Amino acid sequence: MTSPQATALADAYRQYTDELVAHGLLIPQGVRGLYGRGGAMEDVIERFERLVTAAGANDGADVMRFSPIISRKHFERSDYLKSFPDMAGSVHSFAGTDRDHAALLAKLERGEDWSDGFPATEVVLTPAACYPVYPTLTGTLPRGGRLVDVLSFVFRHEPSDDPARQQMFRQREYVRIGTPEECRAHRDLWLERGQELLSRVGLPVKVDLANDPFFGRAGKMLAANQRDQNLKFELLVPICSEEKLTACTSCNYHQEHFGHSFGIHTADGETAHTACVGFGLERIALALFKHHGFRTSQWPASVRNVLGL
Amino acid sequence: MTSPQATALADAYRQYTDELVAHGLLIPQGVRGLYGRGGAMEDVIERFERLVTAAGANDGADVMRFSPIISRKHFERSDYLKSFPDMAGSVHSFAGTDRDHAALLAKLERGEDWSDGFPATEVVLTPAACYPVYPTLTGTLPRGGRLVDVLSFVFRHEPSDDPARQQMFRQREYVRIGTPEECRAHRDLWLERGQELLSRVGLPVKVDLANDPFFGRAGKMLAANQRDQNLKFELLVPICSEEKLTACTSCNYHQEHFGHSFGIHTADGETAHTACVGFGLERIALALFKHHGFRTSQWPASVRNVLGL
Repeated sequence: MTSPQATALADAYRQYTDELVAHGLLIPQGVRGLYGRGGAMEDVIERFERLVTAAGANDGADVMRFSPIISRKHFERSDYLKSFPDMAGSVHSFAGTDRDHAALLAKLERGEDWSDGFPATEVVLTPAACYPVYPTLTGTLPRGGRLVDVLSFVFRHEPSDDPARQQMFRQREYVRIGTPEECRAHRDLWLERGQELLSRVGLPVKVDLANDPFFGRAGKMLAANQRDQNLKFELLVPICSEEKLTACTSCNYHQEHFGHSFGIHTADGETAHTACVGFGLERIALALFKHHGFRTSQWPASVRNVLGL
Repeated sequence: MTSPQATALADAYRQYTDELVAHGLLIPQGVRGLYGRGGAMEDVIERFERLVTAAGANDGADVMRFSPIISRKHFERSDYLKSFPDMAGSVHSFAGTDRDHAALLAKLERGEDWSDGFPATEVVLTPAACYPVYPTLTGTLPRGGRLVDVLSFVFRHEPSDDPARQQMFRQREYVRIGTPEECRAHRDLWLERGQELLSRVGLPVKVDLANDPFFGRAGKMLAANQRDQNLKFELLVPICSEEKLTACTSCNYHQEHFGHSFGIHTADGETAHTACVGFGLERIALALFKHHGFRTSQWPASVRNVLGL
């Protein structure tokens, strides 16, 4: 049984997706929550990303870019499997002989699962853009800590009809690694900057305390703890619904979680704390097309100006 | 037993990798063939990509951008498993209860393979940038066919010490879908343009007939057929070795392979043929740093000029 609200939301998702596809902005790939992007969508994403770069340009961040897979061993140390096993993407490949290959093709021919015997590779899909950063920092930080500018596609196994909840999308992040004070200051600074950035491109933004979607019964407690400690804030924008807002940016303080997992220490020998701000680039572009229309040539002059359109 | 040649090559791979890491251009991720990229490496990649865009700017290509996963069903229809099962990346995820989750964490704790029971998801990693394009074209093409500009990270499970053979890297492609004549003309045009582009940035380039690394015994015949029919040409550049050159660009004519798999027809009702040119962006950047040095500020003026540095 679905409620009237759920039905209305499902309709809104379908309608916006259809419109995005009709305007060549999203390209269906035959899987729920998986889309290609047309040139105009990609252009808006790149232009908004340049605004993020400009906002952080004087902070002296080190640029790191990663492809969307990380080491399985590092992933294990991150504790992601404890919190979000259902979102993970484990990469498997064939490692057999000619004979095994013939058996594989026979399964494929019969429409059976051909990948059930594929062994795990050394890699998994990247769950969040900041994950590949921490293992590169094992050891002692310089005084003042580190600031890293990172961009990556990330994978979340959560097939959805909401066009703003895709299985793979880009996060542009600034990651701070240092003392608790440095991390809280970073989080608070970007909470301000994020609101300003989204407002400048004409999006109505609301800040809210949030929690990650921790898995299972134990997850309920983890989520409550995260909220009690004010660790996660989201910048929310209406896309398909005025009631169920979409998180377009999140500002997270992880305390010593990653510093502990990856053996990162401050110059004073304390376990490093970390914080990150992440901009969900596809979501922000989807919000922009929703609020300003499907043709960028008709967007408000002020927004076109800020984006250099 | 390794030959003196193999030892020399292994040394060359190690030495160049060490230098790239020391200059902050590659960032080790703890897995063979997996690296992050520093800001200067990424900047060169983006600048070279802009040259590719400029070279094709007047051809009227449709821009499509895909994240690095595609539909498992589309992947099955592509016949990739027949030819390259060992390179494939199948994505699996957890789909259990709280109780299964406890068992998963116990396996992780004991250092066992926690992913062996993960069911296959609806997606696999993208094996080549043009693969997501074909399923979007099922049906009848307009007269004159289609031309698509595509960029994607692609996955190849082939762990290697050669820094130019990474497990995930970007391919920038122009894909032609139409008649055999249109496809051959596209392939030949970009064979010329590719040589010119690589020459303009100061790379010594050699054209050679090539074949894909087909799997197993049957693969030997597929490879021989591909060569006999002049279907694949590569633009080769020396990176770590003057003898074993590295393919930086490939120009491929697939005949009706993809048109047949995805039901694409020309305006005249024939099965469409396809061809693509793909630029391996990471490889080209690695060749540039090898030939011109680790600091772009010291690259030859002509190369800096072409890249807008």
